[in-house]
Amino acid sequence: MTDNLQRVYQQACDHARQSAILAAVQAALEWDERTMLPPPAAEYRAEQIALVSGLVHKQWVEPRFGDWLAELAASPLAEDPYSDSGATIRELRRQRDRAVKLPQSLVEAIARAAVLGQNAWQEARRKADFQQFRPFLENMLALKRQQAEAIGYAQSPYDALLDDYEPAALSAEVTQVLAALRNELAPLVAEIAQSGRRPDVSILARRYAVGAQEQFGRAAAARIGFDFNRGRLDPTTHPFCTTLGPHDCRITTRYNERHFNESFFGILHEAGHGIYEQGLRVDQYGLPLGQAVSLGVHESQSRLWENLVGRSLPFWEHLYLEAQRQFPEALGDVALRDFYFAANDVRPSLVRVEADEATYNLHIVIRFELEQALLLGDLSVGDLPGAWNEAYRKYLSIDPTDDAVGVLQDVHWSAGLIGYFPTYALGNLCAAQLFAKADEELGGLKALIAAGQFLPLRQWLGEKIHSQGQRYPAAELIRRVTGQPLSHRPLIAYLRAKFEPLYGL
Amino acid sequence: MTDNLQRVYQQACDHARQSAILAAVQAALEWDERTMLPPPAAEYRAEQIALVSGLVHKQWVEPRFGDWLAELAASPLAEDPYSDSGATIRELRRQRDRAVKLPQSLVEAIARAAVLGQNAWQEARRKADFQQFRPFLENMLALKRQQAEAIGYAQSPYDALLDDYEPAALSAEVTQVLAALRNELAPLVAEIAQSGRRPDVSILARRYAVGAQEQFGRAAAARIGFDFNRGRLDPTTHPFCTTLGPHDCRITTRYNERHFNESFFGILHEAGHGIYEQGLRVDQYGLPLGQAVSLGVHESQSRLWENLVGRSLPFWEHLYLEAQRQFPEALGDVALRDFYFAANDVRPSLVRVEADEATYNLHIVIRFELEQALLLGDLSVGDLPGAWNEAYRKYLSIDPTDDAVGVLQDVHWSAGLIGYFPTYALGNLCAAQLFAKADEELGGLKALIAAGQFLPLRQWLGEKIHSQGQRYPAAELIRRVTGQPLSHRPLIAYLRAKFEPLYGL
Repeated sequence: MTDNLQRVYQQACDHARQSAILAAVQAALEWDERTMLPPPAAEYRAEQIALVSGLVHKQWVEPRFGDWLAELAASPLAEDPYSDSGATIRELRRQRDRAVKLPQSLVEAIARAAVLGQNAWQEARRKADFQQFRPFLENMLALKRQQAEAIGYAQSPYDALLDDYEPAALSAEVTQVLAALRNELAPLVAEIAQSGRRPDVSILARRYAVGAQEQFGRAAAARIGFDFNRGRLDPTTHPFCTTLGPHDCRITTRYNERHFNESFFGILHEAGHGIYEQGLRVDQYGLPLGQAVSLGVHESQSRLWENLVGRSLPFWEHLYLEAQRQFPEALGDVALRDFYFAANDVRPSLVRVEADEATYNLHIVIRFELEQALLLGDLSVGDLPGAWNEAYRKYLSIDPTDDAVGVLQDVHWSAGLIGYFPTYALGNLCAAQLFAKADEELGGLKALIAAGQFLPLRQWLGEKIHSQGQRYPAAELIRRVTGQPLSHRPLIAYLRAKFEPLYGL
Repeated sequence: MTDNLQRVYQQACDHARQSAILAAVQAALEWDERTMLPPPAAEYRAEQIALVSGLVHKQWVEPRFGDWLAELAASPLAEDPYSDSGATIRELRRQRDRAVKLPQSLVEAIARAAVLGQNAWQEARRKADFQQFRPFLENMLALKRQQAEAIGYAQSPYDALLDDYEPAALSAEVTQVLAALRNELAPLVAEIAQSGRRPDVSILARRYAVGAQEQFGRAAAARIGFDFNRGRLDPTTHPFCTTLGPHDCRITTRYNERHFNESFFGILHEAGHGIYEQGLRVDQYGLPLGQAVSLGVHESQSRLWENLVGRSLPFWEHLYLEAQRQFPEALGDVALRDFYFAANDVRPSLVRVEADEATYNLHIVIRFELEQALLLGDLSVGDLPGAWNEAYRKYLSIDPTDDAVGVLQDVHWSAGLIGYFPTYALGNLCAAQLFAKADEELGGLKALIAAGQFLPLRQWLGEKIHSQGQRYPAAELIRRVTGQPLSHRPLIAYLRAKFEPLYGL
């Protein structure tokens, strides 16, 4: 290998790291927008974000960067696609190829529309008035169609967008796996409904003081491994996790005094994302080996800690006394089993983020179908609220009471995140598959969790998933770690093993 | 006027607005750094700020921008220097000329020295050990001398630095006005000391719960006119005010449970800065007509609300009952006059930011004299602590107990802010001169303030100062608004009128 080649490799990596600095600036502006920004400042913030995202894009499309990557891709450094240099070159090229296809003006237009759209969405949701959000969504869809055409696709324009979140996934394949999942979920949900058993969920709607919720949630996040020395937790409207640098991962939540679940499981969820981000290689920050592999795998980490750990009986065996101490009036007279049952109430509901583990994926199927129809023009934005409500009747036998808890409940479309929703369901599949493997390799997770020993699981995930970055494509990574391609079966097995005894099926 | 000329003017303004967007991004990163950032993230944040500040500088020095401004400066658009276009062209040229004169390498060297200097200063202050800070200050002074030479000056290199904060001010003039001020302050401070009267300041060191302080300070800031719909208030270590966009002005404070003054008058001070920023013309954001005219005038606004309003008897006649309601244990048994007297305790002290209105300016005179001597080489850095202590004995008859509360108390020199201190005193002069004029034109401010009617004063300042932006240079603005050049007399008159009755002089 020549010195020259090594120099070119170094230049390409330095170039990517520069663009990561700008991307972190953009993340900082976006975090602030969603947690701190005075509402009238949104328009100017949109200008700032648009300008910076344009600079990020400019950095990616710089011709000499393309030349370096082309030279490197044809060199021995790229021979093994899973080596450090091979994976780095492969993924930088993939990202750059996507960027080159997008005109700068479109990138900036989408960034600006995303900020304005989110602002309009917040206002519309507050008033439960979809009409006021409608023009923003129409505008965003037009831009996303342009994006799909610019990037190109073999089968569906939707694939061009999906690829942003789940590289190399195809909507046809996702449709297949979600159909298989739905076919097995529907009978399970029906059996549960017919069981006649129902937990007393009113205990979760007692008074949980916000300050105590914050303290309890923060302590739980720290205990499972979110590092608050290198991160923050703040309130927001629509919770998210974002990374502003190698030592700056920020999670958010929203508090509801009359609903324990919302912030607590939300915090565990975002902490799961955060633990992935904090487990990435610091020395590779801004390069593919220091970046999460896909949103599906990212979601597997949040779901794993939120559900497979956080909603498990062993977890509450470990934590319930503390919960009772923190919320004596709400939980002092509640038995552990009753609390556990209430936290695992399976019941068709209106709001995705509050859904139980069994019905959750049906919420995703609805969004996945609707956003494809919107993008392809098979459904007009004006008809969306009606189609939304109809889908909820069809899949969940439930009728949205208004748009705020209906079509306006999620931020994604307002922010241009079309093609994002299916990654939630893929994450659920992946979480169950990884958890089963970890359980096998660590010799029984239940005992560890009941003892409050979360470190072995976190280290296992750190070694198998987090520290790998983008060395392997997502599907390959899962296959290597679990020995199987991604399947709906581990999730169904997990759900049946959990809910059959609980509901006496 | 040709269409072409109008087009060039538009291009130049658009160019300046672009650079303002980047500057706002930098401000956002810096605000976050000082209020939110996890400490281990500081290093990467420095990378982000350095990159963005480099982009701002690059935008300013772009050759075509200079060409446009040169063409405009020779055109009819610049004929009247106080017209919209004339002032805009004049000030853009002035700012660009300064930017162009500074080599990028020097800008970067100063930025780097500022980061290292502030770090070293913090450490040295903690240990009260000036020697460990000495080489950093020597290095910074060498760089600032280079900066002064690069920019150029007619009389003193100090003027080239002062110009950054107080455009067009000359150190000879500042020396004169501060000498006049000092000559009249010294006897006043001596008379007060000899009066034998002293307030009971211990009432301000009772327990003031932080939450109540925040609530009370926030309400007071809102009442004098800081618009929380277009701004925020957050806690920080070293309070400041910053602007992130035309509707996004953020102030900060620090709370001390055992010191009422620190946060309350600090909040009024920063709110005064904020009211200026919020009163700038939104349609001119990023252009000279939408920017504050100088640091001295900026400080006049903060000092006016903090001292001439906030520390006045009428202000507390209006607010004291509420203060007693908010802090019943601390103030329930304290008479209004005793509280007012305690808040206006005049006493030579070691620390500038805790100084009263009468002695404050003597702290500034000391710094102004010392930093000139340092820059000109008349004083070596090694001799600085001795010179500092000697000056405190001479001007304030007080002996610094150690370097932490002596020469190391302020961050400014470590950050390269040389030429900044006199703007504090100029702000005090200017505040008194404006307040006297407003009092005359509004027919008595005392009655308005005692009635809690702050809007007339704010509107008067808005019309006379805030909405003018940089239309007139600072000195010209003050002359036009008050009918007089800036003078020490209104401040002395104000201080005598206030303190003579209080101390029975």
